[in-house]
Amino acid sequence: MIAEQITLDRASDEGLSRQLFMQLRGLIEDSKLATGVPLPPSRKLASTLGVGRNTVISAYEQLTLEGYLETDGRRGTRVSKATTGFVRWKDRKVDPVQNKAPLRLSIHGRRLIANERPVNRLPSCFQTGLPEVRTFPHDLWARLLRRAARQLLSRPELGGYDDYVGLPELKRAILDHVAISRGVVADPEQVIILSSAQASMDLVTRMLLEPRDMAMHEEPGYGGVLACLKAFDADIRPIPVLDPQTYQRLHESIGEQETPRLIYATPSHQFPTGRVMPLEDRLSLLEFAASHGAFVLEDDYDSEFHFSGAPISCLQGLDRNGLVIYMGTFAKSFMPSLRVAYLILPPALVEPFGFGLRNTGAVPSHTTQLALASFLEEGHFKAYLREMTRVYRERRDALYDALLETCGPFLKPVYPEGGIQMPALLTDACLKAGWTDSLLADRLTREGMECSALSSLYWSGAWKPQQGLFLGYAASDVDEIKKGVERIARILSDETP
Amino acid sequence: MIAEQITLDRASDEGLSRQLFMQLRGLIEDSKLATGVPLPPSRKLASTLGVGRNTVISAYEQLTLEGYLETDGRRGTRVSKATTGFVRWKDRKVDPVQNKAPLRLSIHGRRLIANERPVNRLPSCFQTGLPEVRTFPHDLWARLLRRAARQLLSRPELGGYDDYVGLPELKRAILDHVAISRGVVADPEQVIILSSAQASMDLVTRMLLEPRDMAMHEEPGYGGVLACLKAFDADIRPIPVLDPQTYQRLHESIGEQETPRLIYATPSHQFPTGRVMPLEDRLSLLEFAASHGAFVLEDDYDSEFHFSGAPISCLQGLDRNGLVIYMGTFAKSFMPSLRVAYLILPPALVEPFGFGLRNTGAVPSHTTQLALASFLEEGHFKAYLREMTRVYRERRDALYDALLETCGPFLKPVYPEGGIQMPALLTDACLKAGWTDSLLADRLTREGMECSALSSLYWSGAWKPQQGLFLGYAASDVDEIKKGVERIARILSDETP
Repeated sequence: MIAEQITLDRASDEGLSRQLFMQLRGLIEDSKLATGVPLPPSRKLASTLGVGRNTVISAYEQLTLEGYLETDGRRGTRVSKATTGFVRWKDRKVDPVQNKAPLRLSIHGRRLIANERPVNRLPSCFQTGLPEVRTFPHDLWARLLRRAARQLLSRPELGGYDDYVGLPELKRAILDHVAISRGVVADPEQVIILSSAQASMDLVTRMLLEPRDMAMHEEPGYGGVLACLKAFDADIRPIPVLDPQTYQRLHESIGEQETPRLIYATPSHQFPTGRVMPLEDRLSLLEFAASHGAFVLEDDYDSEFHFSGAPISCLQGLDRNGLVIYMGTFAKSFMPSLRVAYLILPPALVEPFGFGLRNTGAVPSHTTQLALASFLEEGHFKAYLREMTRVYRERRDALYDALLETCGPFLKPVYPEGGIQMPALLTDACLKAGWTDSLLADRLTREGMECSALSSLYWSGAWKPQQGLFLGYAASDVDEIKKGVERIARILSDETP
Repeated sequence: MIAEQITLDRASDEGLSRQLFMQLRGLIEDSKLATGVPLPPSRKLASTLGVGRNTVISAYEQLTLEGYLETDGRRGTRVSKATTGFVRWKDRKVDPVQNKAPLRLSIHGRRLIANERPVNRLPSCFQTGLPEVRTFPHDLWARLLRRAARQLLSRPELGGYDDYVGLPELKRAILDHVAISRGVVADPEQVIILSSAQASMDLVTRMLLEPRDMAMHEEPGYGGVLACLKAFDADIRPIPVLDPQTYQRLHESIGEQETPRLIYATPSHQFPTGRVMPLEDRLSLLEFAASHGAFVLEDDYDSEFHFSGAPISCLQGLDRNGLVIYMGTFAKSFMPSLRVAYLILPPALVEPFGFGLRNTGAVPSHTTQLALASFLEEGHFKAYLREMTRVYRERRDALYDALLETCGPFLKPVYPEGGIQMPALLTDACLKAGWTDSLLADRLTREGMECSALSSLYWSGAWKPQQGLFLGYAASDVDEIKKGVERIARILSDETP
């Protein structure tokens, strides 16, 4: 009896008709209701199950629509011929290939994710790359979002596919800001809006680099861009940023016939050393790029937070040859979860990269863009940056001083002129005690003080990595920083690696 | 005299000190202030320019910070040695290679954007892929956004990098919805959240396909996935969806030793024909995929709008072998500018694809995700879908009837059982009059009635394309539809191609 295999839950969110549909379908798929078997008339099944006749009719209709039942006036409703497929399914003992066989990812995919590890994040006072979120003007932002969403009442076209690579309002607001604060020289049309800096790096890489094209990357350097370069099989050459002569000698680091295609740089605050690229190095880099027809990818990720004077003007404004691709993001200056970043492109790249972005689809919502444009235009962003620069300067000092005072024998902090994180090198004493930066970073992470090991930011194998911790200070207040450093000090003095 | 080359605008938004800095910098970069040239004492320049001394000191300090000036106690401030680079710059007549030489994009990039054209969009009553935005509950959404943004006051961790591939709240809400409305069988952990369907297709392609791996795609079929497949150099084989036997004979369309890796399908409403894939074809497709260890990419883009009965259950819920990758999007059911889509992955793909997404960065803001979760959980989405299904059914009927009545001799509409667009085939009479669907679509686009030509959705060259228009009806009310069809009729009867 079919009815005996049906159990309906009157308390469920799912309607009775839907439940009946799902269960009958299950019986058919499991071949418990075989092909050709007639179903009871709706009135009869309804009466047996204690439901309304329409409930059964509805379920039968949907099953018919989906091909499980067929109705022939004379012969009533029966399980359709199409369902013989389920029998074959059951008998075939289909080898669930994908579930049991080793999963084959593409080489591109494997390279893209090669450095990923599962994230088990406890809140950490030294997490790098994380700005302060607790004192963000959430109320104000909430009001701006609401206002922006309501704009669609009078401008419904904002809800569609127009302006796919960025709303003009936001492009203009960004440009107005960076022209003054960063010295960018460009028109709004050169700006495209993306969902993240990672999406920016991915777009630039895939639009410009052939497999085995040469790309030059900083060492130690940022892993995010490395993943993209590896995935697209670039021939990646290191720029040893700790060597003060590096940028004067770029031509010596490649073969005579070789031509780099893309050069990645973080000139405002080198990631991770914090070094500010001096003017002579900037000019050398641009000359080098120009002589090879290479693009420079300038990642200006946290330049807004500069503690001595105004932020240093960017490379893009210095360039006269349309060679610099400028990357900006709101992840550090606003908050990471906002998911808005941008590229300011040389004129020749604007159309092709816009087309490319239409096909990668890494773009933020229009409401978010509108609200952000207001946040910039109304002066809130500038005020927030001023306030946070003051706060971050204070926290940098707190971390630096605390490290010197309490971890002095073991860690030597490197004083950054800006940004939201600092390196702290392991001293000889620390190394002699058996610590490596990886061991120490792991130990601290297990204590809930997640931070990075500097050596993990070396990637070419050409140099012996400096051993050091890489500590964020932006997301913790002065008290939390001091307590955190005390815990580090205790671990270093009381424990063995 | 330096002062003669400086012009300060007291009315500008840009501070005087910043203006002075920028102009002095410009003089140095243009070599009008040569290396080694001393600058006037700050008090003197301030007096000559009529500004405060601090204004000049500030500008000098920033120029020193940036490397343009150097200060030597005895010799005062002069243009630094680093600036010799600017002289070399000027003399070198650097060939602005990137501006003048033909731009070299990667082959990948060129394939990715091969079908793009500049968009000059006038509002169009027949634009495909566009849902109605004017009657969307913008006020409600605005309130939900504000509420979501204010949640960060008590949960600041939402502002950081946690839950990068999707907030658990949204994953659960999506799954609760699609389990019932689409018959999806999965756990919330199998859901990842992206910024668009395009980003989903891009991620799937790059994580699974090696260059020249075989992918099978519908013909006529969606161009967005084609761009990704081409960019990653897949060997793309067509599935001729107009042949009713196609899915029963998939094995005949490839060589004996050949193995497809990925099969793209739009089973709910085939794009563009609107055909609903019957049960027997679904079972055949899944068997075919299982026998080859191929993944099926199910694009369920506008399945929610089904006009006869409930939407047909999806392929993912039918599969028992972890072979179906389910793509969903809120672009049609909510609005395109929201930029939220999702993948529901077989368990084996969850971790690697999550890692992949962390490196492509195509993710939406947390505030948007939270608000959307509420929109779903509080029943607003279900109510909105019900209402819009009613509206779109009405508009489908209006367009279908109007085309029959007024364009009958020339266009034969194809009645869709769901979705937001319909094909209308060109009749023999229309073709004899000299029209092709491209000519007609172009003509209509110039009239502000942008629509697609069906033949543009053919891509393999293996079949002669059906000639037809592809007309959206969701974004226009019944009146606008009728008026639009009258204009089409006039063009067809009064004009020559």
